[in-house]
Amino acid sequence: MEYRNPEHYHIKVRIFNEEPYFGKGVAELLELIEEKGSLCAAYKTMGMSASKAWKIINRAEADLGFVLVESISGGKCGGGSRITPEAKELLERFRAFEREVTKAAEAAFEKIFVN
Amino acid sequence: MEYRNPEHYHIKVRIFNEEPYFGKGVAELLELIEEKGSLCAAYKTMGMSASKAWKIINRAEADLGFVLVESISGGKCGGGSRITPEAKELLERFRAFEREVTKAAEAAFEKIFVN
Repeated sequence: MEYRNPEHYHIKVRIFNEEPYFGKGVAELLELIEEKGSLCAAYKTMGMSASKAWKIINRAEADLGFVLVESISGGKCGGGSRITPEAKELLERFRAFEREVTKAAEAAFEKIFVN
Repeated sequence: MEYRNPEHYHIKVRIFNEEPYFGKGVAELLELIEEKGSLCAAYKTMGMSASKAWKIINRAEADLGFVLVESISGGKCGGGSRITPEAKELLERFRAFEREVTKAAEAAFEKIFVN
């Protein structure tokens, strides 16, 4: 049997204080909330349950120490939601971080695994 | 509530063909097999069950298309195991890849999240 280089790589990026809760999933959810103006529409788009969506938002908020999502008006799927200015700031930085890591990974993978 | 930068990041690296099975866990296991000359001693050191160890080795082998671990002599925990030359090659490249990604992530995190 001969050695063969694997063809793909996968990088998972998370940022946190105590527990690594903020990653791709919450980031996507926040972006969809911003786009759709509704938490409900956002998690439905992702095929996610309401309880899962709340869970990943709440534990990220608890770890980060600030609120990510606030509701504009009452009601469950009736009312709207928006992300806080703090969430926007974090999201931007997270995406920039992710971009730089991915760029570096691409170059390293090419160098090390593509002959 | 004020925005605060998270203090830590976490990067998970995997390499694969079809399914992202080769990551930190298998890599550690292979290194321990090499060090101890025994699969059994290796998974015990990691606090891993025999079935979990075989599972992560077998599915990585199936995905990569070559054998990672071979037994030197018969017997379960009695006989010894060693990693194949192909596994050594892969392990070296994986660690090099991981090192470069981590180095880039460190620099990016510092730039983006440390004020």
